[in-house]
Amino acid sequence: MTRADLLFPSEPTQRAIARELYALAKDQPIISPHGHVDPAILADDAPFPDPAQLIICPDHYVTRMLLSQGVPPASLGVRTLDGEPYETDGRTIWRTFAAHWRLFRGTPSRLWLEETFREVFEVTTPLGPETADEVYDAIAAKLAEPEFRPRALFERFNIEVLATTESPLDDLGRHAKLAADGWGGPGGRVITTFRPDNVVDPEFLDPVSGTAWADNVARLGELTGEDTATYLGYLAALRKRREAFIAAGATSSDHGHLTARTLLLDESEAAALFEAHLRGEGDPEKAEAFRAHMLVELARMSIDDGLVMQLHPGSVRNHNRWLYGRHGRDVGGDIPQATDYVHGLAPLLSAYGNDPRLRLVVYTLDEDTFTRELAPLAGGYAAMYLGAPWWFLDSPEVLRRFREAVTETAGFYNTSGFVDDTRAFCSIPVRHDVARRIDAGFLARLVAEHRLPLDEAAETIVDLAYRLPKGIFRL
Amino acid sequence: MTRADLLFPSEPTQRAIARELYALAKDQPIISPHGHVDPAILADDAPFPDPAQLIICPDHYVTRMLLSQGVPPASLGVRTLDGEPYETDGRTIWRTFAAHWRLFRGTPSRLWLEETFREVFEVTTPLGPETADEVYDAIAAKLAEPEFRPRALFERFNIEVLATTESPLDDLGRHAKLAADGWGGPGGRVITTFRPDNVVDPEFLDPVSGTAWADNVARLGELTGEDTATYLGYLAALRKRREAFIAAGATSSDHGHLTARTLLLDESEAAALFEAHLRGEGDPEKAEAFRAHMLVELARMSIDDGLVMQLHPGSVRNHNRWLYGRHGRDVGGDIPQATDYVHGLAPLLSAYGNDPRLRLVVYTLDEDTFTRELAPLAGGYAAMYLGAPWWFLDSPEVLRRFREAVTETAGFYNTSGFVDDTRAFCSIPVRHDVARRIDAGFLARLVAEHRLPLDEAAETIVDLAYRLPKGIFRL
Amino acid sequence: MTRADLLFPSEPTQRAIARELYALAKDQPIISPHGHVDPAILADDAPFPDPAQLIICPDHYVTRMLLSQGVPPASLGVRTLDGEPYETDGRTIWRTFAAHWRLFRGTPSRLWLEETFREVFEVTTPLGPETADEVYDAIAAKLAEPEFRPRALFERFNIEVLATTESPLDDLGRHAKLAADGWGGPGGRVITTFRPDNVVDPEFLDPVSGTAWADNVARLGELTGEDTATYLGYLAALRKRREAFIAAGATSSDHGHLTARTLLLDESEAAALFEAHLRGEGDPEKAEAFRAHMLVELARMSIDDGLVMQLHPGSVRNHNRWLYGRHGRDVGGDIPQATDYVHGLAPLLSAYGNDPRLRLVVYTLDEDTFTRELAPLAGGYAAMYLGAPWWFLDSPEVLRRFREAVTETAGFYNTSGFVDDTRAFCSIPVRHDVARRIDAGFLARLVAEHRLPLDEAAETIVDLAYRLPKGIFRL
Repeated sequence: MTRADLLFPSEPTQRAIARELYALAKDQPIISPHGHVDPAILADDAPFPDPAQLIICPDHYVTRMLLSQGVPPASLGVRTLDGEPYETDGRTIWRTFAAHWRLFRGTPSRLWLEETFREVFEVTTPLGPETADEVYDAIAAKLAEPEFRPRALFERFNIEVLATTESPLDDLGRHAKLAADGWGGPGGRVITTFRPDNVVDPEFLDPVSGTAWADNVARLGELTGEDTATYLGYLAALRKRREAFIAAGATSSDHGHLTARTLLLDESEAAALFEAHLRGEGDPEKAEAFRAHMLVELARMSIDDGLVMQLHPGSVRNHNRWLYGRHGRDVGGDIPQATDYVHGLAPLLSAYGNDPRLRLVVYTLDEDTFTRELAPLAGGYAAMYLGAPWWFLDSPEVLRRFREAVTETAGFYNTSGFVDDTRAFCSIPVRHDVARRIDAGFLARLVAEHRLPLDEAAETIVDLAYRLPKGIFRL
Repeated sequence: MTRADLLFPSEPTQRAIARELYALAKDQPIISPHGHVDPAILADDAPFPDPAQLIICPDHYVTRMLLSQGVPPASLGVRTLDGEPYETDGRTIWRTFAAHWRLFRGTPSRLWLEETFREVFEVTTPLGPETADEVYDAIAAKLAEPEFRPRALFERFNIEVLATTESPLDDLGRHAKLAADGWGGPGGRVITTFRPDNVVDPEFLDPVSGTAWADNVARLGELTGEDTATYLGYLAALRKRREAFIAAGATSSDHGHLTARTLLLDESEAAALFEAHLRGEGDPEKAEAFRAHMLVELARMSIDDGLVMQLHPGSVRNHNRWLYGRHGRDVGGDIPQATDYVHGLAPLLSAYGNDPRLRLVVYTLDEDTFTRELAPLAGGYAAMYLGAPWWFLDSPEVLRRFREAVTETAGFYNTSGFVDDTRAFCSIPVRHDVARRIDAGFLARLVAEHRLPLDEAAETIVDLAYRLPKGIFRL
Repeated sequence: MTRADLLFPSEPTQRAIARELYALAKDQPIISPHGHVDPAILADDAPFPDPAQLIICPDHYVTRMLLSQGVPPASLGVRTLDGEPYETDGRTIWRTFAAHWRLFRGTPSRLWLEETFREVFEVTTPLGPETADEVYDAIAAKLAEPEFRPRALFERFNIEVLATTESPLDDLGRHAKLAADGWGGPGGRVITTFRPDNVVDPEFLDPVSGTAWADNVARLGELTGEDTATYLGYLAALRKRREAFIAAGATSSDHGHLTARTLLLDESEAAALFEAHLRGEGDPEKAEAFRAHMLVELARMSIDDGLVMQLHPGSVRNHNRWLYGRHGRDVGGDIPQATDYVHGLAPLLSAYGNDPRLRLVVYTLDEDTFTRELAPLAGGYAAMYLGAPWWFLDSPEVLRRFREAVTETAGFYNTSGFVDDTRAFCSIPVRHDVARRIDAGFLARLVAEHRLPLDEAAETIVDLAYRLPKGIFRL
């Protein structure tokens, strides 16, 4: 970082301590136990496409902000589902983006992009409408160099381990290639994560292909040779895929549910729900019950096979229906909703919350639950850890509020470290750097207010940056 | 301001930057696109009454605080509905108020009143039980001078445009007078706002006159010559009144609803609800459905006629039943409630949220929704803007928390600038000044933490103070 | 305090003011109007047991944090209900605790324990795995000295009055002993509080003894000579016990309910609910209605007999079922839930919220309600006061957020001062000291930002530390 004091408190006593603490964390290897980088990037190690295709088109933080000011996603290169044209010229997209650069003032996107330009691509010209071409050309030139191939960047970024996220229906071919190249497999640098939402959620539907849950369950059967027309066969198939994921290096599973509801059903009740949905006789209430039960079932599997269980609840998918209809999923149309963890997680925690074999990392989009629900739960159950602020919340202000809100009840050691959760490979270093800087600033305040001795703060910052995520995610 | 550094961070680096930024904002003209100043004040331009009648009796921030410590509103000159006596002597009221001055320590009322005394009335004697008469007399003396007439103050306050708020049943006579005097009409200095709650909410009832919604609907028919016994006639009448309001300078409408619920009904369903209520066959659920539907209907009208649509949900009116029974509405008996914007606004936003012709400014009394709901919605829909912190929240601490909470997801440019929302004409400058100071302090921190260059912060503070509200409210 | 600036803002201007303000508060006598110290401690004035029995085993803040990292409560000396063995050797317990000391970094427990070691026991060796025995021995040595008997400490702590909490079924024998020794009774140093939950909540059940609500109601009848098989007899019995509590010095009652719901039933409806539950024909809904009604009934009793009414809602008791099954109640298994005060308290406040004879102090575990609900209610009803941040929230960060959130709407004078709410007698001074330091820091910021003159801040800090709790709790 050229801007050495970026994000540190400006009060001189705290700033001096923050610098000292940050110096201990900044060169720690990056542990990235949860994210959405396409494993093909690292398996193929091909040069990245043009700057717009790399940085703008796939980043829904960017395209949603421009949409909010009336700039259509199609003009930013977001693919349409309905055959309507969309911009494909990288330079044109980049100019549109640069013309609206001021919208990002005060946002983490601004910070991530600026630091990526500066640190990854060594472009120091400030972006703006007049410098759009200059910045574009400079980045494009870098992308043509071999040092900017994905694996070279991976090394330069000092990433120790990166977990991608795949569906059980994925054949894990990219991860096999990575393993063959010495990059993947158990204990490898690039590993997978077991994310079974599309075979667990009876309401799942892909807007492009029309594929529904029942189709996915059938395909799960084909992949595993289990009879997934029965509930027990379905569970057996899930277990088999977990084994395959573990063989591909996975140490955790991930679950994106609308709510945090969990439910203990006996086998016959669960089977009845499963079969009702397979017959097309489900309804929203039954679907919620099945998802809630499956979280408990998956926790049991975790107890058996050791996968750390991650839960990401509270995102109302595709709230922006116009956007969904035109561009599909994962393009910025989701909105958080209030989430009840206290009653939602009670059945699961009552059953397994104190079982030393279970490790459950819970995330939130609802910061109102930090103090009231998540810190008391993580600080009161042996199995539960508190995941890093997620998505809309993975920003400097919220990372700071997270520590202010949860530390007093959960301490530092029930939190599981920063996760970048990103598709944007080039932004991984800056995202982790931001979290380390904010933690340094928070710890500096504790030291400055005589609440923690400097030597303990020094140990803690390294724990947060490196040792905690590595240990908790069994890496 | 004599107290040059009022409300700035005390950390010297930030304070120095805040001063520099504030200097750019402080002399910007005041844009007041939403408030409750009585237009008669400016239409008649009569001298203000005594200090207590001007400052204490109508200010429910003040009377509710004294009530909370056992001082009856009647002793503060709040008119009773039941014929019980109430204090009318200005000096007596003022003394009671001054005797409880310490209650306001740390509140925005303290700040507003103190700065109003100092800046508007040039009274620098600190208020207190012993100085009550001295301050009273000094203000009373000023009120007798021609420079303290409303229009003279308006000029001195450097107000560029002030929007008042009227019901569709208002004849807009005061605004006609203002237009005749060169003060009102389209593009004028004093304009109106279309606030149709009393003809939109089937549960509306005026406790004094006994006038109910159906009476108001009938009167709407008389005013417009439309047959408001039918739903289509009712809609036509609303459209006619909107035209009249636009002719009186209005650029926005305003809607105070209990919840943020919206609902798309087809015409026959809406007509059936309308008619059921007219026949006296409504119920709370039907009333909520009708209000929810009408928000969508009014959004359609906005798309047609260009009025910016403001939504103020979440106030439980007349929670304090004793106060309501004795003194009626708008005297400090309302209490906020939790508000669900994510599901409430979904139908409206699905239909028109990306329509470039709609402009929807949403306010809240529930700051728990800043990060979780409002910033994601405003940062993801083209039509939606985030209104300034409202009412209980229009205070220094919350104005700061608002920027800290929403900027990272919505940026600065999806917020619509400060609104004073006040009945208290003399407090308008200080309210805007407080917002400018807090924004200066917030931006100063971003600069001091190297998150925003000074030149961009300088442009932003003027945008927030002047250009954004002027542009977004089409002024 | 050796660490003179503990918890003060590190910015020099604010720190200097904070020191000045804190100097005015630090030697004020402690008013402790709500807590859970066992009155036997002071009645018997026996030496305290070993350090672990005194400090670790009964402190569920400590045992729950260790449980959250997999350390079983039984290994920390928490008594089991099922006959399973639990550790009883103080030194062994202490070593286990010390081995996990780093878990408490950044928590209030760390602060309380460290300051208790330092200030109460004059042990300055930093605790850690290597120093466990040294610290243990040093504290044990002090505990053997007569200066460390409870009454001697009480004097040294400068406690003016300490309220314990008893059930109406308690015979108040310890308080009689205290009164006989000149320590208790009306106006005494150690007084009781009337906490009738176990005779008011029809769902009450003691997991150890099996005692249920109906058993308690019967015993209430025996104690008072009233026929508690009837509703009117039950009310009469409650009134008699309140008289007895007042005679033992009580000035307040306390009510721990799952929700803040209140309900006005007429006598026959209430009697029907009461009798249904006595007959074993209750259900959760009826139980909630009865509790809600009883809050109104108890408010009426308060109006008659002058007991200040405290309400503590929102704790989901025994959320951790494993912990409850093994170790019972009050060992760290409770979790907060979201609480609705606005609608919950409306019936009670509508009936008596402006009655000058009622004084209702409301607490919360849900800080999301600070600005939205509690500050507006306390700042709008004469009878209501806002209790100090409770339990999970009685920490430096939340004490500061509390002032930042509520002061602007409720002021300082609708808050009722700090309550330590603790079982841990030796931690009382540090808990009050933390609150005083945070208030000093908050007021210092107001002064540094020119929002409050120093002389008024100086008066306010003494009000908060001493005069307000003393006055509001009628001590």
